[in-house]
Amino acid sequence: MPAMHQGLSERLICLHDEIKSDGDLTELSRVAVALYDERTDIIKTFIHSSDSESPLDHSSAKLASLPSLKELALTGGRRTINDLEAVAESGQEHAGRLVSCGYLSSYTVPMGSKGQFVGFLFLNSVNKGFFTPKVIQRLRPYAELIAQVVMRELDTVRMMHAAVKVIRQVSTVRDEETGAHLARMARYSRLIATRMADRHGLSDEFIEYLFQFTPLHDVGKISVPDHILFKPGKLSPEEFEVMKAHVVRGLEIIDMMAFDFGMHSLAYFTVLRNVIAYHHEALDGSGYPHGLRGDEIPLEARIAAVADVFDALTSERPYKTAWSNQRAYDLLLDLAGTKFDPDCVAALIDSRHDISEIQARFEQTVFD
Amino acid sequence: MPAMHQGLSERLICLHDEIKSDGDLTELSRVAVALYDERTDIIKTFIHSSDSESPLDHSSAKLASLPSLKELALTGGRRTINDLEAVAESGQEHAGRLVSCGYLSSYTVPMGSKGQFVGFLFLNSVNKGFFTPKVIQRLRPYAELIAQVVMRELDTVRMMHAAVKVIRQVSTVRDEETGAHLARMARYSRLIATRMADRHGLSDEFIEYLFQFTPLHDVGKISVPDHILFKPGKLSPEEFEVMKAHVVRGLEIIDMMAFDFGMHSLAYFTVLRNVIAYHHEALDGSGYPHGLRGDEIPLEARIAAVADVFDALTSERPYKTAWSNQRAYDLLLDLAGTKFDPDCVAALIDSRHDISEIQARFEQTVFD
Repeated sequence: MPAMHQGLSERLICLHDEIKSDGDLTELSRVAVALYDERTDIIKTFIHSSDSESPLDHSSAKLASLPSLKELALTGGRRTINDLEAVAESGQEHAGRLVSCGYLSSYTVPMGSKGQFVGFLFLNSVNKGFFTPKVIQRLRPYAELIAQVVMRELDTVRMMHAAVKVIRQVSTVRDEETGAHLARMARYSRLIATRMADRHGLSDEFIEYLFQFTPLHDVGKISVPDHILFKPGKLSPEEFEVMKAHVVRGLEIIDMMAFDFGMHSLAYFTVLRNVIAYHHEALDGSGYPHGLRGDEIPLEARIAAVADVFDALTSERPYKTAWSNQRAYDLLLDLAGTKFDPDCVAALIDSRHDISEIQARFEQTVFD
Repeated sequence: MPAMHQGLSERLICLHDEIKSDGDLTELSRVAVALYDERTDIIKTFIHSSDSESPLDHSSAKLASLPSLKELALTGGRRTINDLEAVAESGQEHAGRLVSCGYLSSYTVPMGSKGQFVGFLFLNSVNKGFFTPKVIQRLRPYAELIAQVVMRELDTVRMMHAAVKVIRQVSTVRDEETGAHLARMARYSRLIATRMADRHGLSDEFIEYLFQFTPLHDVGKISVPDHILFKPGKLSPEEFEVMKAHVVRGLEIIDMMAFDFGMHSLAYFTVLRNVIAYHHEALDGSGYPHGLRGDEIPLEARIAAVADVFDALTSERPYKTAWSNQRAYDLLLDLAGTKFDPDCVAALIDSRHDISEIQARFEQTVFD
C-alpha cells in the first residue's frame, strides 16, 4: 500500500474531489468541518475544501447562540437550506458571508462519536436548490466517511492524552499540573493563536492542534523527583540540571508513543514536539535547554510559553498567592521582547475579556 | 446524539443495510472483512454480514498461498470476479464454498492504514455480473467507510497496547513478560479458541479480540516489586499477597484507560477485563484472587491460562531451563480437570503443528 502522510486538510480536499467525480455531485462546491469544545460551548471552524473563496476562516461562536444548529446537535437531525439568499436577507450573518462568496445552498450534518456530539459537517453548493432528496441520498456515505476520517484522527490525540493521564497516575508523582491549569492554558494558547492567525498565516487546523497539544507540554515532569519539582526556594545548579531534563524526557516519551499511536502520520506532530521541546526557551537566549533566540524558537512554543507563565502567575500555588490579571499582564509586558514574544503577549492581553471568562469557567474543575 | 454501543459485527450489518437501500445496490448480498497478521503472514476471517448462508467462518490461510490476493495487498488494486462459478470449476476452494452458498460474483478491496496493509473487504452478490463499473463507482465511498470504521476500532486496541508499553518503560520495572512471550501466548490463545469455536459457538470477532487482548493479561505486574516478581524460591504469604494484587491493579489500570480510550463502546471490553481478572483462577477453586470454580471462570480466562502456562513452561527463565513441548503437554494433561479446562488443553495439543511453527517464528524477537 502506498504510504499516506497527509494532514486532514489535504485528506478533505481529496475526498471533496472524489465526491465531485460522481456525475450527480459535481456542483458540490464546498465541504467544511467545525469542531465543538463542549466545556466552553464553543463551535469553531477547523478544516475546509472550497472551490471558490473561503467565507468563514477563524470563526467561532457559542453553540447556545445558534439555536438551529444546537437543535441538530441534540437530535442528530440534518438541515437543508436550498436558498441561502433568503436566509441572508433575513439578517443571518454566516449565511450572508456564504452568499457573498457565491454559495447559494447548504446541507448540515452533525458528527457524533460514542454518543457525544463532536462538531458539524457543512456542505455547500453554488447552485440554488442543489440539495434534492436524490443528492442527499447520494451524499450520505460520503458524509459518514468524512466524519469517520476526522474522528479517527482526533481519537489519536485523545488517546495520547488518556495514556499520559494513566502514566501520571501510575508513576505516583504528585502533580503540579492540575487539570484546571492545563484546561486554561490550552484555551489561552488558542486565543493567542487565533488573534495572531491573519498576520502569521495560521490555519484553523494548526490552531486546533495547538489547542489539543499544549496540555502535553510538561509530560516529561514525571521524571523530576518531588523534592525538586516542589522546592519552594531557588534550585541548586545540580537540581536545575535535573529540572531541565524534563524537556528531553518529555520528547522521549512522546517519541516512544508516536510510532504506535500513528502520530507520525499527523501532519502536526512537529507542533507537539516543538511545544514540548521549546516552551522553556526565551527570546534573548536565556532559556533552556538549547538557549535558542528569537525566531529560532518555533511560534507554537512562544505561544505556549506565554500561556503557561500567565496561568502560573495568576494561579495560587503552595508557595505563592494568585496574582491579579493586571499584575501578570504588566510583568509579561515588561518581559516582552527579552523573554517573551511581544506579539504573543499583545494577543493575550487583547483577549482579556475571553480570558476572564475562561478563568471563571475553569476555576476549580479538574481536566479529566 | 443517540449513544452507540454496538460491536463491529452489528455496525457492519447496519452499513450493509444502508448500502442495499441504494436502488442500484440492493443485490449486494454479502460484506465481509478479513484481517491480516503481518508477523505470521496469516489472513483470517473477522466479521461479515451475509444475506444467505455464511460460507467462510473460522477460515485462515497464509497470504503467500493466495497469489492474487497477495498482489492486491502489495499494489492496493481491486479485484472484480463477475463469474465465481467459472473460478470454482477451476478448483479454487474458497470460490467453491461461495458458489455453494449462492454467491456468484465478488469484488475485493484491500484495506490499508498509515501505509500498512491490514486486511481485505470482500463484497459478494448472488447475481452473476453484478459488479459493473457503475456499481463499483457507487460502492466506492461505502467501501472506504467500512474500512475506516473497522480501522478506527482496531486503532483503539493498538493504542492501548502502545500506552501499556510506554507505562512499562516509564515505570522502570524490569519485565519478565518479554515481547516474544506475549506474541506467542496471544497466538496460542487464538489457536485454542479457533479449535473450540464450533463447539462453543465462538465468533471470529471474539477470537480476534481474544488474540489482541491476551498480551495485556499481566499489565498489573508493574505494581509488583522486582524482589517479589523475580524471587527464585517460594513466596512468603505476605509476598504472595503482593503478587496477587497485580490482578486487581491490572483491572484498575485498564478501567482508568477505558473511558478515555472509548473502550466501553467496544462490545468485547469484558473479554479484556475477564482475561486480566481471572487468568490465575483454577478449575478446582485453588486459584486467585477469587477462588472461582469451573464454569464460573469465563472461557476467555481459561484459554489465556493454558496459553500463558504452556509458554512459561516451554521458555527459559533465569531460574529454569525450557521444557520440551511434550513434557509441558504431559503436565497440562495431568492438571486438566483440576487446574485447567480439559477442552482448552486438548485444543492446544491438537494444534501442536501450528505451535511449533509459532515457536520457530517468535524464538527471540521482541513484541514492539
